[in-house]
Amino acid sequence: MSNWSKFDSQMMTLALQLAERGRYTTRPNPCVGCVITLGKTILSQGYHRVAGQGHAEANALKDLAERGISAKGATAYVTLEPCSHYGRTPPCAEGLINANVSRVVVAVLDPNPQVAGRGINMLRHAGIEVDVGLYEQQAYKINRGFMKRMKQGLPWVTLKVAASLDGKTALANGVSKWITTPQARQDVQRLRAQSCALITGVNTVEMDDPSLNVRYSQLGSLQQALTEKEVHQPLRVVLDTHAKLTPNFQIFAVQSPILLVSHTPYSDVIKAQMPAHVSYFTTDLNDSGRINLNAVLIHLGQQCNSVLVEAGATLCGSVLEQGLADELILYQAPKILGSEARNMLKLPDYSIMDSLPNSQLVDERKVGKDTRYTIHIAATQ
Amino acid sequence: MSNWSKFDSQMMTLALQLAERGRYTTRPNPCVGCVITLGKTILSQGYHRVAGQGHAEANALKDLAERGISAKGATAYVTLEPCSHYGRTPPCAEGLINANVSRVVVAVLDPNPQVAGRGINMLRHAGIEVDVGLYEQQAYKINRGFMKRMKQGLPWVTLKVAASLDGKTALANGVSKWITTPQARQDVQRLRAQSCALITGVNTVEMDDPSLNVRYSQLGSLQQALTEKEVHQPLRVVLDTHAKLTPNFQIFAVQSPILLVSHTPYSDVIKAQMPAHVSYFTTDLNDSGRINLNAVLIHLGQQCNSVLVEAGATLCGSVLEQGLADELILYQAPKILGSEARNMLKLPDYSIMDSLPNSQLVDERKVGKDTRYTIHIAATQ
Repeated sequence: MSNWSKFDSQMMTLALQLAERGRYTTRPNPCVGCVITLGKTILSQGYHRVAGQGHAEANALKDLAERGISAKGATAYVTLEPCSHYGRTPPCAEGLINANVSRVVVAVLDPNPQVAGRGINMLRHAGIEVDVGLYEQQAYKINRGFMKRMKQGLPWVTLKVAASLDGKTALANGVSKWITTPQARQDVQRLRAQSCALITGVNTVEMDDPSLNVRYSQLGSLQQALTEKEVHQPLRVVLDTHAKLTPNFQIFAVQSPILLVSHTPYSDVIKAQMPAHVSYFTTDLNDSGRINLNAVLIHLGQQCNSVLVEAGATLCGSVLEQGLADELILYQAPKILGSEARNMLKLPDYSIMDSLPNSQLVDERKVGKDTRYTIHIAATQ
Repeated sequence: MSNWSKFDSQMMTLALQLAERGRYTTRPNPCVGCVITLGKTILSQGYHRVAGQGHAEANALKDLAERGISAKGATAYVTLEPCSHYGRTPPCAEGLINANVSRVVVAVLDPNPQVAGRGINMLRHAGIEVDVGLYEQQAYKINRGFMKRMKQGLPWVTLKVAASLDGKTALANGVSKWITTPQARQDVQRLRAQSCALITGVNTVEMDDPSLNVRYSQLGSLQQALTEKEVHQPLRVVLDTHAKLTPNFQIFAVQSPILLVSHTPYSDVIKAQMPAHVSYFTTDLNDSGRINLNAVLIHLGQQCNSVLVEAGATLCGSVLEQGLADELILYQAPKILGSEARNMLKLPDYSIMDSLPNSQLVDERKVGKDTRYTIHIAATQ
């Protein structure tokens, strides 16, 4: 279907806005919104907020039932194909069928090859008119991490870099705190709050001793939409090839999950000293003698829709160079640190003047006195 | 005087706008504007356009005379103290006295210590009321190059750098063309057209083989305000310590003045091959075995109000490090060239996180897809 009515477009826009409200809370589930209408009247709205609790369609139907309103003959607008399987909640397709809706408009199919289309078929077999593809791209984008994980088994990977105008992240002596303004750092807190996992390197932990957690007090206006309890702390992943880390760093003091990734296993002595929220994962090394990043991402892809890499120039550069990054977010402060300071990205010596291969600037905006650039990197496969 | 009337402010604003119209054409003279009023009526306006031709006051008075209008009892608003000496034109103070004006409002005094105040005194001795200081800072700023030259014997020095998001100007192999968009390069053409001289290094000439001239066709909307003949080609200055240059570079093919600065004198053989528009200046070396930049600027300060440095990271870095730069203009393209590419500024290894010493971001704006940052550097003396 390609000729959508203006009303259809308006209703799906609303459903997308509802889906957006789950951005910080639904993971590892996707964000989904649902609007149920009869004629030109909105009967009810729903969205998915927390995994294990009601899906968008179920929430909208429950609202109708509670108010004693029938959905018979109604149209349901959903941003993602209704599920067809019994999970922690009954299948939404079944719910829509039981509610006697006449038509379901779906923005995008569930990308999981074992699911895609089954929800649609279930509805159609029950005699419901199903139209698919309204605002498909927008609906895909909202769940780009979930989509990538379903299709490739890998999370969406965002690199975050804060640098000066001359592309430096720290002085040669390692001093690097406060390049950017508080507004930019608040923006990073929001990035973290959206991410299922953060990846950093052992050098960053040893040098900067960061906590790498989400600090509720720094979420700004997001505090109005989110209680402190609802904030997901991302899994903090430290790449530590030779298992050098000891428990005396700040990151261990914060009570939320940490995954230590190494090639050399940690000794039992160190493990005994580590807090209970630390787990371990060992991988092989690549040809350069470093952690196999792809293996780490496949491991994280079992649960994580999105990963934020906050690390030094070498690790960030490796992720880019190996074609594992989907996005680079650069916070640039209007300062000059000089040629001896540290580069933001360790990359190969390009021989053509073509910038970062396959990259595209998709957004550029002021964040306080700094500028935030969002650069998408196309898959090279 | 500090309580200026609204009318005074409006008239001086107009005079400043008139002065601005000489930006590309008056040098080495300052830009000056003049408005003559009677009561609340504007009698005439004038500005200085080309050195050797009428000054602002003379042009405004000439316009009155041609129309047979008397300036008796009038007020003259001038952005710079009227001159008191016979140059290529008679002194403007005398002209205002002869025209029988009652009051002269001056924005800023002529900074030349041998002149400052004489024009004012001449007017006051003739019984004219003189008020000084209305929009003084703005009037100073319009002629900041002229002001600096009059006070210190040195031109205003602007460094221009075009770099990527990661602060790189060229790939390691030297490829550097077209980092920025055509709009940014057009903006650079306007910078050049405002500059009395351009400074570059022999390495840039050998590597990029630039013409370093103003190309009228690339001046964009400025073409409407300026004829091709009126465009001043800046003096092109090449720093060539060991007199290595030969006449086969593009810069020599363009018929406008070139100054070759070296420590080693050029051989008579090379000089004989050079075109007639080339002149020479030799200097001592500093402790690092490089051209004494201060001596070059003092030499240029005899005639040049403003100098634009378009050079590599080493020369630009030296100018900054020696405290000789007043301003850094950075055109930043949203590209990433990688850590192996060339740094934009060779600077010392700073040990505190304080950015470029004494620098202040004064302007930041989009120029096409690029961003132009203007950073002022305070004198360290």
